[in-house]
Amino acid sequence: MNYLHGHPHALPGHRTTLAGYQARHFLFDLSDGVATLTLNRPERKNPLTFDSYAELRDLFRALALADDVQAVVIAGAGDNFCSGGDVHEIIGPLTQLDMPGLLAFTRMTGDVVKAMRACPQPIVAAIDGVCAGAGAMLALASDMRYGTARSKTAFLFTRVGLAGCDMGACALLPRVIGQGRAAELLYTGRSMSGPEGERWGFFNALQEPAGILAAAQALARSLAEGPTFAHGMTKKMLQQEWNMGIDEAIEAEAQAQAICMATNDFHRAYHAFVAKQKPVFEGD
Amino acid sequence: MNYLHGHPHALPGHRTTLAGYQARHFLFDLSDGVATLTLNRPERKNPLTFDSYAELRDLFRALALADDVQAVVIAGAGDNFCSGGDVHEIIGPLTQLDMPGLLAFTRMTGDVVKAMRACPQPIVAAIDGVCAGAGAMLALASDMRYGTARSKTAFLFTRVGLAGCDMGACALLPRVIGQGRAAELLYTGRSMSGPEGERWGFFNALQEPAGILAAAQALARSLAEGPTFAHGMTKKMLQQEWNMGIDEAIEAEAQAQAICMATNDFHRAYHAFVAKQKPVFEGD
Amino acid sequence: MNYLHGHPHALPGHRTTLAGYQARHFLFDLSDGVATLTLNRPERKNPLTFDSYAELRDLFRALALADDVQAVVIAGAGDNFCSGGDVHEIIGPLTQLDMPGLLAFTRMTGDVVKAMRACPQPIVAAIDGVCAGAGAMLALASDMRYGTARSKTAFLFTRVGLAGCDMGACALLPRVIGQGRAAELLYTGRSMSGPEGERWGFFNALQEPAGILAAAQALARSLAEGPTFAHGMTKKMLQQEWNMGIDEAIEAEAQAQAICMATNDFHRAYHAFVAKQKPVFEGD
Repeated sequence: MNYLHGHPHALPGHRTTLAGYQARHFLFDLSDGVATLTLNRPERKNPLTFDSYAELRDLFRALALADDVQAVVIAGAGDNFCSGGDVHEIIGPLTQLDMPGLLAFTRMTGDVVKAMRACPQPIVAAIDGVCAGAGAMLALASDMRYGTARSKTAFLFTRVGLAGCDMGACALLPRVIGQGRAAELLYTGRSMSGPEGERWGFFNALQEPAGILAAAQALARSLAEGPTFAHGMTKKMLQQEWNMGIDEAIEAEAQAQAICMATNDFHRAYHAFVAKQKPVFEGD
Repeated sequence: MNYLHGHPHALPGHRTTLAGYQARHFLFDLSDGVATLTLNRPERKNPLTFDSYAELRDLFRALALADDVQAVVIAGAGDNFCSGGDVHEIIGPLTQLDMPGLLAFTRMTGDVVKAMRACPQPIVAAIDGVCAGAGAMLALASDMRYGTARSKTAFLFTRVGLAGCDMGACALLPRVIGQGRAAELLYTGRSMSGPEGERWGFFNALQEPAGILAAAQALARSLAEGPTFAHGMTKKMLQQEWNMGIDEAIEAEAQAQAICMATNDFHRAYHAFVAKQKPVFEGD
Repeated sequence: MNYLHGHPHALPGHRTTLAGYQARHFLFDLSDGVATLTLNRPERKNPLTFDSYAELRDLFRALALADDVQAVVIAGAGDNFCSGGDVHEIIGPLTQLDMPGLLAFTRMTGDVVKAMRACPQPIVAAIDGVCAGAGAMLALASDMRYGTARSKTAFLFTRVGLAGCDMGACALLPRVIGQGRAAELLYTGRSMSGPEGERWGFFNALQEPAGILAAAQALARSLAEGPTFAHGMTKKMLQQEWNMGIDEAIEAEAQAQAICMATNDFHRAYHAFVAKQKPVFEGD
């Protein structure tokens, strides 16, 4: 199932655009190079469904080739971020699946995270209210996160009889908040409060509920102003060096940064500096 | 030397029980599926000896097969957790050993940590007072840790002329409290206070001395109520993904969680949810 | 270009000394076994140049063989640590280089970090005022860091159109302050304040500006008093275990610590303890 419209022949390396993209299972807005995805079933606290997982996977994959999106914001409608996989629409059907079916599901959800980490655009999550289960994983798979004092983030897989290892949680969460705190959240499924999340490094900052979306978009917009090629390289190397030795990581960065030094944006920055001007980056 | 009684033919995959286990070198209590190990030489602040290392190693290995233990608490008697390897009973004899003997010792102590990480039961450490040397490593090798305001945790290997790399400290401590803080503790051997430990993520919370054991047991009991199979998978994957790439970790979790979705506990949780009841997990 | 004098035939394993070393591009002081490197162009906030990078690389490589240096302090003159690569002396010329030239540069800067991590002496950075770009990387490549309330640490590569992956930043910074906070600093290039740095684990402590150099030297001197062979092993294993599995790390530490148990310093510590004296370590 392919939810993407208008780019039927997109090939690897073939750049496309997402302007005019009509999202089916969430809201999609694109302005100033910032795509804002808003999970939008507020009466249910924005749960995920089979279809919304698939569309998120496809959209984040499409972002890898999209010329007109430079940063992404992910948020939820109506005072909550996301309640995770819907019990009736997801958990129930899962109890009916055979093993190949179960694995197809867990791979699909994992593919959402893989696609979020693989697209070059930095992703900023705006997290107010409930942020639970697979919703907490969408937050964790983002590059940066804003929360609110009232946000409640829970990796509550254990509450439905499952393990904390879901969509990469056991790999990602310890590196964000430390191994001991991650273990507690993953074993117990308890909520991390907003202030805890800020103190532990899960949230980059807390915002007022009324201002969190604007703050996330402002951060995304500042990144969209560039240097976007370099930002994509930063994201790639944060991923790439995850389990490299230090010396190998240093060599990898020597190569990656040499590539960036061959871009026009590097030259633009230098010339702007010499002219005492603010550089205007163009992403090449 | 095998300290385990009553299961002489235990084979891998052959489930056993630890009820009635008579510990020789510490106290062992088993109730509500929670095994509590209490280091018990309070007049010496509960040092470790060659024999207690070996018994800890054997017991944690036996836990991998024990049907009747679902979570573990490790604590010390009399206001202290553990003073580490005893100077007279361990350090002195070590100065007399040849290289194969030294390596046999460091491998035995490392095997305690390997066994703690390999058993499927989550381990909660209750740390009051002195927590030093190998004692600090028992704390670090646990999954979660409670401390007290007066607890003093010191990786003081350097004070006896040794390196900070003991029983996995250079691997584990940086992932719990960060590389810079870990470096300071390992190079200097200085004590980390209780409040520092909480602030840095070493302790999940501080408790009153009078209540810390009960708090650790309550946490362990809540985990023992299940889903224990899933908890064991969480623990396994936290270990397994330690140095995987992100994409490989996500695939590993897709497989691990698909296994958990095939358990009865997952179905029990769903049916309890639908019936608006609290699920009763059974570990299968 | 080799800035090192007096040890023309230094071979691996051939111990040398650095007493009397005449630094060309920074200040070098050696006393009580502590080498203090002071970046010294205070009127420009101590920028780095092609020559100072090369001399730092060569000096840290020489430290691997230096008998008379047991710990290192790195600092900046005149209220600032280091402003990073000079725009006129580095950025400008880089815009003229071809790809092999660019890679030679990024490898040289990376080699500074590799050499800092490879020398056995613990490195303490004393960071007041501006700490930017490659200067922030010198701080990050140190083992421990003191800051001041007014210190401003910025990984500002993005400001000149480059990526955050420079000299190992994407590998090292997440392990020191967590993945989420590191991402923000690397994508945005914003300054981390002194109090933030302390709270996040970048700084081991904040000091008064007037006292920070003395504090760093006091810490270094305490490490220089030994056990220095063991400290070198701690540093080696913190590096070595970066991307090992836990079990492999534990075996690696069993071997490393067995080596340390065969040193005289271990015996000296034991005999001092028995005699109720402070051990005097000699590094063998």
